[in-house]
Amino acid sequence: MTAHRALPSHFRDNLRGFFDAQSIAVIGTFREGWFGGSVVITSLFNAGYKGKIYPIHPTHKEVHGLRVYPTVSDIQGGIDLAILMINAQHVPQVLRECAEKDVKAVIVVADGFAERDQRGVLLQREIVDIAHRSGMRIIGPNTAGIVNTTNGLNMCPYDAGYYKLRKGSVAICAQTGMTNPQAFPYHDLRFGVSKICDFGNKCDVDECDLLEYLEEDPATSVISMYLESIAQGRRFLEVASRVTRKKPVLLLKSGKSQEGARASASHTGSLAMDDRIFEAVCAQAGALRLERFNDLFEIPKVFAYQPLPQGNRMAIITITGGVGVLSIDEGANYGLALSTLSPRTREFLNDIFPNLGEIPVDIGPPAAAIKDFPSRYPEIFNAVMADEHVDCLFNILWVDHIGRLVELYETVYKQIKDTYQKPMVTWLYGPNMAYVDELRQRMEELGFPVFPDPETSIRALGMALRFRNLTPRN
Amino acid sequence: MTAHRALPSHFRDNLRGFFDAQSIAVIGTFREGWFGGSVVITSLFNAGYKGKIYPIHPTHKEVHGLRVYPTVSDIQGGIDLAILMINAQHVPQVLRECAEKDVKAVIVVADGFAERDQRGVLLQREIVDIAHRSGMRIIGPNTAGIVNTTNGLNMCPYDAGYYKLRKGSVAICAQTGMTNPQAFPYHDLRFGVSKICDFGNKCDVDECDLLEYLEEDPATSVISMYLESIAQGRRFLEVASRVTRKKPVLLLKSGKSQEGARASASHTGSLAMDDRIFEAVCAQAGALRLERFNDLFEIPKVFAYQPLPQGNRMAIITITGGVGVLSIDEGANYGLALSTLSPRTREFLNDIFPNLGEIPVDIGPPAAAIKDFPSRYPEIFNAVMADEHVDCLFNILWVDHIGRLVELYETVYKQIKDTYQKPMVTWLYGPNMAYVDELRQRMEELGFPVFPDPETSIRALGMALRFRNLTPRN
Repeated sequence: MTAHRALPSHFRDNLRGFFDAQSIAVIGTFREGWFGGSVVITSLFNAGYKGKIYPIHPTHKEVHGLRVYPTVSDIQGGIDLAILMINAQHVPQVLRECAEKDVKAVIVVADGFAERDQRGVLLQREIVDIAHRSGMRIIGPNTAGIVNTTNGLNMCPYDAGYYKLRKGSVAICAQTGMTNPQAFPYHDLRFGVSKICDFGNKCDVDECDLLEYLEEDPATSVISMYLESIAQGRRFLEVASRVTRKKPVLLLKSGKSQEGARASASHTGSLAMDDRIFEAVCAQAGALRLERFNDLFEIPKVFAYQPLPQGNRMAIITITGGVGVLSIDEGANYGLALSTLSPRTREFLNDIFPNLGEIPVDIGPPAAAIKDFPSRYPEIFNAVMADEHVDCLFNILWVDHIGRLVELYETVYKQIKDTYQKPMVTWLYGPNMAYVDELRQRMEELGFPVFPDPETSIRALGMALRFRNLTPRN
Repeated sequence: MTAHRALPSHFRDNLRGFFDAQSIAVIGTFREGWFGGSVVITSLFNAGYKGKIYPIHPTHKEVHGLRVYPTVSDIQGGIDLAILMINAQHVPQVLRECAEKDVKAVIVVADGFAERDQRGVLLQREIVDIAHRSGMRIIGPNTAGIVNTTNGLNMCPYDAGYYKLRKGSVAICAQTGMTNPQAFPYHDLRFGVSKICDFGNKCDVDECDLLEYLEEDPATSVISMYLESIAQGRRFLEVASRVTRKKPVLLLKSGKSQEGARASASHTGSLAMDDRIFEAVCAQAGALRLERFNDLFEIPKVFAYQPLPQGNRMAIITITGGVGVLSIDEGANYGLALSTLSPRTREFLNDIFPNLGEIPVDIGPPAAAIKDFPSRYPEIFNAVMADEHVDCLFNILWVDHIGRLVELYETVYKQIKDTYQKPMVTWLYGPNMAYVDELRQRMEELGFPVFPDPETSIRALGMALRFRNLTPRN
C-alpha cells in the first residue's frame, strides 16, 4: 500500500514513539468532564507518568498546573507523541502542524472518518497522506487510546475513575474501545497487563504493526487481540507466523456472519475477510482463535502465569461429578484426554477412599465421609499433580457457606507454587459468592488462574496445549 | 420396565407426594454439622415449611424441640415423604419400614449405589424392587434433595447457609447436586425458582416423571434441566413433545464425547445416549439444547420474565460498535436477523444524530457529542422499541466510573415495563463493577434479564425465538 511497509524495524521504532514517549502533546478541550485533554493529563499524572506533558489549546493559559501552548509549534523541545481530541474536520490541519514539528506518533481520537460516510473516507485518506509524507505514524482515528503500564503512559481520553493498572505481561489490543480502561474494570483484575491499544479505524497502525512491536516488547508474554478485519492478509500471515514462535497470539474476530461483516463496515470502515479464509490464516500462522468476548480477558491468564502443558493428559479433581463430565466433553474439543493415573497413584488414592483413584478424581464422596478430609486433601492433590501420567490439572473446588476451607485451599496452592512444571486451572463454586470471590482473589494473587465457568477453564488449558503443539515449528 | 410406567397420572400424584408433602420423616444423623437430619430440619424451619416434621433416630429423644421417633412405625399419623441420610447398606431395611408405614415418596441421599461398583448396582436394584412392590417412588439415590419454594419445602441435606429462596417460575432439575442450594448461590439470584430437584442416579423417578409433574405445576413456567443420560428414549420423546407445547424445556446434556460418556457411568451409573441421537430427539421433541453449565441459570430468565418474540427481527442499541458486530454474528446462529428500522424511525434517529438510524443503533457517538444526551436517550430507546420492524431488542449499556446514568437507565426501564410486547435482553459493562452490579440488580428487580456477556444475551433471545417457532405445532 505504501513504501514504508518495507521497513519493519522502522515500524517498531515508530510504535516505541507511542508506548515509550518521553514527551506528549495533549491537544483538545480542557474543560472538566469525563472526556478530553483534562482527563488525559489527570490519567498520566495519576498513573505515574514521568515524561513531559504539553497541553495545547488556543486560549487556555494553564491546566492542572501545566503551561498551555497555543500550538505545537510554540513548544521549545521535541514532541514524541501527540493525542488529538478535536473534531474530525480540524484533524488534518493540526496533523500538518505536528508534521512540521516532526512529531512521529499521533493518536487521533475523533470519529467521523471512514466509519461514518464518504466524506469521512476522504478525510481519512487525507490524514494518511499527511502521515506518509512526513514519516508520522497514526493510531486511529476513532480510537480510545493506548496504555503502557511500564511507564504510566495511560492515554485514555475517557475517565475510567482509576489510573494505575496492575503491571503484567498480557497485551490487549482491539479494533474497539471495549478493552480500554473506561470500558473494562482492569483495577478489579488480579492479572496484570503490559499494553492496551485500541487501533480504531487503523488507518495506519494496524494489527501487524502492533504484533511486530509486541514481539519485541520484553514486558509482553501473551497477546490478546480483537479484530473486525485483517488489513493485509499476506503480511498478517508472515508477521503472525513469526510472533507465534515466541509468544501466543490469541485472536477474537467478529464479522463471521455476512450480517456481522456488513456491520463491521459501518463500525470501523473495515472490509471483513471471509471467515473461512481467516480461519485458514489463523491455523497457518499459529494464532489461537478465541470464541467469546470475555475470552479476551480470561484465556491470556493461563499463558501469563502458568507453564505450558508438556502433553495432552489432563487430570480433573472435582467435588462434583456432573461438572467433571461436562469438562471432559469440553476437553475433547481441544484434544485434551482424561489421564489414567499411574498404578501407584491409583493405589494410594483408593487406599484413602474406594474408587478415589478413578478418573475424574471425585473428592465429593470422601469429603462427605472422611472425618479428617481436610488433612488428607493436600495428599490427594499432590499425588495427582505429581503423577507422571498427568500433564495438566483442572481443579474444581466447592467453597461452603461459611468459607470453611478457604485457608486450607490457599495454603495448598501456596505450597505447590513453582513445585510442578504443569499448568493448573481452577473453577470455584458455592452457595455464598462472597467466599467464592475471596478464594478466587487469593488464588489469583498467587498466580493461579481461576475461571468463571468450567468450560472457560478447560478452554484455557486447551489453548495452552494448542500453543505447546505449535512450538516445535521452525 | 415396570408395570406402573403405564399410569402417568399416578406418577404425577406420587411426585406431589414429594413436592407437596404435608408430613416428612427425616431419617439420619442429628449431630450438629453441615450435613444430615439437623440441617434438613433447620432448613425446613427457616424456609417456612408448615407441615409436620418427624425426626427418626434409634437413640435421640429431641432435636430442635421436636420429639424424635426410633422408627417410622412409631409415628402415629401418616407420612407423605421420607428423606434417608443413612449409609447405603442400611437403606433397604429402612425402605422396607417406610413401605410398611405406607410412605409413598422417599428421597435417598446416600451414595455408594450403581455409580460405585457392582455391589452398588445390586443394592440399587434391591431398593427399586422394594419401591415397586409397595407403589413407593424414590428420588435418588446419590441425590442432594429437592426444593419447593411455594411451601418452604427446602429438603437439601447440606447446609447452604440460606433457606428462603425467591419464589419464581423457573424449575431447575439436574442429574447432579450442582444446581441445589448448597452449590449455587440462589439467594444472590434476582430471579425466582419454583422447584429444584437433583434426581441423582434416578433409579426410579427420572426426567420424564419430573417433566410430567412440572407440566402440570402451576408455579412453573420454564424448565431447565441437566442430564447425563435419558432413561427411556421413547417415553422422553413422547413426554417432552407434550410438555414443550406448554412450557419451554431447556436441556444441557453431558457425555457428548466418548470420554465424557464413560465418565457419566462412574458418576451416576448412567449409560449415555449417542449424542447425535440425543440431538435428534431434542429437535423432534422441541426441547431447546443449552451449551454451557451457566446457561442452566441464565437462559431461563428470558422465558420467565419476558414475552416471546413475534418474529426474528432483532434490534441492537449499543454504545460499543465492536460488541454490536459480535452480537450480530451470534444472532445469525439462531436465525435472528438484524432489523432494518422503518423509514420513520430512521428519519427520527438521524435527526438526532447523523447515521443514528443505521443498524446496529450506535449511541456511542451521540453520547459523546450531544450535550443533552441523557434527555434524548429515552426517545431513542422508545423509537427503536416501538418500531414495527423490531421483534426483540438487545440493549447494551455502559455504566461509567461514578454510575452517572444508573438512575436514568432504571427510570427508562421502569417506564417501558409492560409497554411493549417484545422481549428485551441487556448487557452492561463499565470500569467499575460495583455500579455495573448495582444497575444489573435494579433492572433484574424490574423483571428485565441482564446477562454476563454479549453472547449469552443473544443466545437467550435466540432460544426464545426457537421456542416461539415451535408453538404453532399441534
